[in-house]
Amino acid sequence: MRNVRVGILGAAGYTGGELIRILVNHPNAEIVFANSESNAGKKVYDVHDGLYGDTELVFTSEMPWNTIDVVFFCFGHGKSGQFLKEHQIPTSVKIIDMAQDFRINGEHDYVYGLPETHREQIRSCSHLANPGCFATCIQEGLIPLAKAGLLTNDVSVNAITGSTGAGQKPGATTHYSWRSNNLSTYKVFTHQHLHEICQTLNELKPISAPHVTDTLNEGYDTDGITIDFIPYRGNFARGIFCTSIVKLDKAQSAEEIIRLYKDFFADAIFTHYCDNPLDLKQVINTNKALIHVDVFGRKVVVTSVIDNLLKGAVGQAVQNMNLMFNLDENSGLNLKASAF
Amino acid sequence: MRNVRVGILGAAGYTGGELIRILVNHPNAEIVFANSESNAGKKVYDVHDGLYGDTELVFTSEMPWNTIDVVFFCFGHGKSGQFLKEHQIPTSVKIIDMAQDFRINGEHDYVYGLPETHREQIRSCSHLANPGCFATCIQEGLIPLAKAGLLTNDVSVNAITGSTGAGQKPGATTHYSWRSNNLSTYKVFTHQHLHEICQTLNELKPISAPHVTDTLNEGYDTDGITIDFIPYRGNFARGIFCTSIVKLDKAQSAEEIIRLYKDFFADAIFTHYCDNPLDLKQVINTNKALIHVDVFGRKVVVTSVIDNLLKGAVGQAVQNMNLMFNLDENSGLNLKASAF
Amino acid sequence: MRNVRVGILGAAGYTGGELIRILVNHPNAEIVFANSESNAGKKVYDVHDGLYGDTELVFTSEMPWNTIDVVFFCFGHGKSGQFLKEHQIPTSVKIIDMAQDFRINGEHDYVYGLPETHREQIRSCSHLANPGCFATCIQEGLIPLAKAGLLTNDVSVNAITGSTGAGQKPGATTHYSWRSNNLSTYKVFTHQHLHEICQTLNELKPISAPHVTDTLNEGYDTDGITIDFIPYRGNFARGIFCTSIVKLDKAQSAEEIIRLYKDFFADAIFTHYCDNPLDLKQVINTNKALIHVDVFGRKVVVTSVIDNLLKGAVGQAVQNMNLMFNLDENSGLNLKASAF
Amino acid sequence: MRNVRVGILGAAGYTGGELIRILVNHPNAEIVFANSESNAGKKVYDVHDGLYGDTELVFTSEMPWNTIDVVFFCFGHGKSGQFLKEHQIPTSVKIIDMAQDFRINGEHDYVYGLPETHREQIRSCSHLANPGCFATCIQEGLIPLAKAGLLTNDVSVNAITGSTGAGQKPGATTHYSWRSNNLSTYKVFTHQHLHEICQTLNELKPISAPHVTDTLNEGYDTDGITIDFIPYRGNFARGIFCTSIVKLDKAQSAEEIIRLYKDFFADAIFTHYCDNPLDLKQVINTNKALIHVDVFGRKVVVTSVIDNLLKGAVGQAVQNMNLMFNLDENSGLNLKASAF
Repeated sequence: MRNVRVGILGAAGYTGGELIRILVNHPNAEIVFANSESNAGKKVYDVHDGLYGDTELVFTSEMPWNTIDVVFFCFGHGKSGQFLKEHQIPTSVKIIDMAQDFRINGEHDYVYGLPETHREQIRSCSHLANPGCFATCIQEGLIPLAKAGLLTNDVSVNAITGSTGAGQKPGATTHYSWRSNNLSTYKVFTHQHLHEICQTLNELKPISAPHVTDTLNEGYDTDGITIDFIPYRGNFARGIFCTSIVKLDKAQSAEEIIRLYKDFFADAIFTHYCDNPLDLKQVINTNKALIHVDVFGRKVVVTSVIDNLLKGAVGQAVQNMNLMFNLDENSGLNLKASAF
Repeated sequence: MRNVRVGILGAAGYTGGELIRILVNHPNAEIVFANSESNAGKKVYDVHDGLYGDTELVFTSEMPWNTIDVVFFCFGHGKSGQFLKEHQIPTSVKIIDMAQDFRINGEHDYVYGLPETHREQIRSCSHLANPGCFATCIQEGLIPLAKAGLLTNDVSVNAITGSTGAGQKPGATTHYSWRSNNLSTYKVFTHQHLHEICQTLNELKPISAPHVTDTLNEGYDTDGITIDFIPYRGNFARGIFCTSIVKLDKAQSAEEIIRLYKDFFADAIFTHYCDNPLDLKQVINTNKALIHVDVFGRKVVVTSVIDNLLKGAVGQAVQNMNLMFNLDENSGLNLKASAF
Repeated sequence: MRNVRVGILGAAGYTGGELIRILVNHPNAEIVFANSESNAGKKVYDVHDGLYGDTELVFTSEMPWNTIDVVFFCFGHGKSGQFLKEHQIPTSVKIIDMAQDFRINGEHDYVYGLPETHREQIRSCSHLANPGCFATCIQEGLIPLAKAGLLTNDVSVNAITGSTGAGQKPGATTHYSWRSNNLSTYKVFTHQHLHEICQTLNELKPISAPHVTDTLNEGYDTDGITIDFIPYRGNFARGIFCTSIVKLDKAQSAEEIIRLYKDFFADAIFTHYCDNPLDLKQVINTNKALIHVDVFGRKVVVTSVIDNLLKGAVGQAVQNMNLMFNLDENSGLNLKASAF
Repeated sequence: MRNVRVGILGAAGYTGGELIRILVNHPNAEIVFANSESNAGKKVYDVHDGLYGDTELVFTSEMPWNTIDVVFFCFGHGKSGQFLKEHQIPTSVKIIDMAQDFRINGEHDYVYGLPETHREQIRSCSHLANPGCFATCIQEGLIPLAKAGLLTNDVSVNAITGSTGAGQKPGATTHYSWRSNNLSTYKVFTHQHLHEICQTLNELKPISAPHVTDTLNEGYDTDGITIDFIPYRGNFARGIFCTSIVKLDKAQSAEEIIRLYKDFFADAIFTHYCDNPLDLKQVINTNKALIHVDVFGRKVVVTSVIDNLLKGAVGQAVQNMNLMFNLDENSGLNLKASAF
């Protein structure tokens, strides 16, 4: 089978670099062009750490659509929609958008790219909206409960992200002098990923179960299901560590809850329920999501961990590309965990 | 006025070292002896980083009670009670115990040493139980709401601690190779500090307000007030960063809630309400507790931060010593924040 | 071609774990057994972070020699020799020893496993002594100069290593509380890797060039070539960053020196000369060694960087295994750089 | 005695903030104004971490010269000279300049502010050029040998600095995502601090000893004394860890060399020779310089450590202020080491 031919836009940013680091070793894909206006002519390894010796690829300002099968948009948020207004991409070219522009259902044909909930739609789509990093980590932890209709009361989520989540542009909160050994919160109860999280949870839940809202959309005093989400800035570069407290209507045994999770993820390639408590570094530099649950009466504490650049971004995007092109779902994604 | 003469037991551990680092510059106190059986004869600076040039003090295996006014127990938990059974300390010597042995009220005369709630009892006591580090950080964030009788529903607490909280003895979860860039949780819903936290909150609340219980003592299905506490191991050495979500019976304005906090801490020397969001390093190497509140309808998100070795341990212990000996409460505690 | 069948002894340590993380994805090798007396019966992922979902392998206390083609000794130093005295390994089983027991030439048939200098001997050997981590990083930086006979005066080496170099057993200098944000030196001028470094440099140099000695072997006042080596403990988990200052007999142009390096490494798969200055994270989680040179008159400053667990340990060991079994040299070693 | 009245220019930068953190607790000085054009009107604690609760000081755009006894220039390099051309400062106001503008002797009356070599000149000066951070750390390690006339051959210096040395403005090499767990070198052999280092060493050496040059000034092929200096960027916020290898004309005993150091620093308040090997965190958040020496034949390895913001910047500046105003040299500088 011919390799999938890939074009990358926004190839000089963090997600662009990580995508290239994956694709240079992908057995069924090849990078045809890596577009970056501002770096055109430079070697890719002059911008992206860790690629020296792996590729002689050069950034281009061109976009030769007829040479590729799929394009990855690695733009900042908001730019994807704008780009599509200004450029005509042939229908033969599939699109995988890393930004949030098309994650919420609406007047477009982008499929939401969370394989654990949308695998079949992904297989047959041409346009894909890749989920957000926080959104992925939180959803992986909550979807088994949502599907079982158990999200019938408050959900409190704490999730701590690494500095790569803030992108490549330096700023006050990514300055090493400030961020090292430090912690802080931001966008408390108002993080934009709540939208896509609630959309998935509502799609997934039984019709009879209550509608899931979020503090962002619906205000703070509703009696329905709400998701309270406190995002933290952590003092590490990669990863998201998330704990969610879900209060059930009535107590369930740990066995029942854990069974739900194991069944839900039985066919998932990269998401696994773990009997042992988790630590963040188990998933770093991998495309995995690991889930662990503790049950205390009617309270369920879910821990979920991912690498924000991989399962939370381009790893999942390549997983989606594999599905869209009928490749093995894990092709190119058997990554050695860094572990340390 | 004569200097307060201090003896230290367990002087070779982390809290012992930090206590010495404070006391060598305390204008109204002097260390008479630093006891460590296993290090007797060694210079203190051979064990404790950062004391070279500050003191020529030598560890001793002696305990000359008649030379001191106060003794600090810097033992591990459980050893203080045992020590008191085996040794007779003259009544002229006051005791400040860093361990948890006497924090819960019972058949003893130890006063719980949280100055923001027990200042007057501390001033007149001879025996003091210094609060736990997590307990201090969580309580500082909740006591204004408790006093106002507003803790009438669920309280979820996430608090992330530095590695010095785990003590000096090396182990798997304090190994640099594992802990760096890592996060994990432990004792989820079952951390022992919940006991002392609930004790204080119940003492403080109006009689009519509901009794505060915790997931540790009372099980998980009660309809009363419960504190759900998830402790995290953070990848930094010093500090605790805590967020608590408190659900009120009915919505209150941010102004009202903030006013409660400012009023409650109006006389506190080291605890301050901050209008700006907080970051952990603001308090590192200081005896401060800083508090910030965000209000969303009937949900209050409290952020509280301390240095676990200072306000969470020996800084607060020296604050208590100052009160017990009628010194300025901040004597010896005007520490330069490290900031970076 | 049949997969190379691998046995691992000492499989529960850091190098054992990293070796397993590589081999689970190696296209031409399979792990037949992972021996660990103390962990026999446990799942491998219960000990080694990052392997959950990758393998269901279980530690064993058995050593079924007839089922394997090669065994890796992941013991601590000194134990390999002892093991061989106590056990009879069939001659059909090749041995790759991670320890220093057979790195120095003597009454044994172990080939020193630095592919950039010993590739042909490695291809045909049955017993291989894998180089030390510092030794690898320093040698990669010096061997082109040695071969050219230019090591004719002092060589000063500073190399900073991550905490994984100190192994899995926790101790004072790997305690997170101490090591974070800290630096220190150890074994100044007396590190044991100097032996194998000087052995290689002397083998490689033209006969007419002066003999290379080291401060460890030969004392400190010699007028010959000596290598002064200051090892540092760095506050990171993975990697070695090394700078060597070499004083030439007479000034050479940067172009000449750089040409030497590029020529020497022209055929190397994993060692590359870089025109740009280096940073450590370029090689983390890869099997690469990157080299950069600055020339100032007759002084050459060489920077060399590796991942101590990969090119400095089991990555190089797998590279050697590939050579010993006539596989592609980079088989299983096209690892995605973590980069962040 | 009246407090020394202090004005600060450039008060919103890193050194400005650290200076304020020291002076708010200084028993004999008070901050009269903290000037920052761009932050005028803001509370100081809104800019500088760790000052909440310590001061209600507000940044000003005014410079009321007649209200102060001394002004600290906390500008970036080059701006101090420019400022003095544009402003007339009354002669009654002493000046302490943090920048490098007046460190090299010339047509000005600024005294070089290294108390261990220039204490008497400092006491009587009105204008002081505070040494650079690297310069301080390196000089403290070399001045006893220079004074003894022993710097008669090559000197190689490696010094690793924290990110605060790069200032407050965010950039690529201070981005957390890049700098964490990373190391790199910069300005190899060409760092500008070599100028002031060589100036001091030449002033100090016996007339008969050879002139000290540096790779920056004099080129790289001289046969005289040269200082080869490799600066590293470390992955920590505070501190400089430095090792210098000095080759003597002939071997000396360790005892003789150590005696030189102990004698030289006998009267120094903040610089101490340590018998034990050093680690960086011993000096963090203190004004100390600690020195340790290993001797191997005719090679002397000197380790020196400082906190770059304190002994390497404003701590030393306050030490100089104390000398200039006849205060106790350590007034306001008995800082608790952070240790962790």
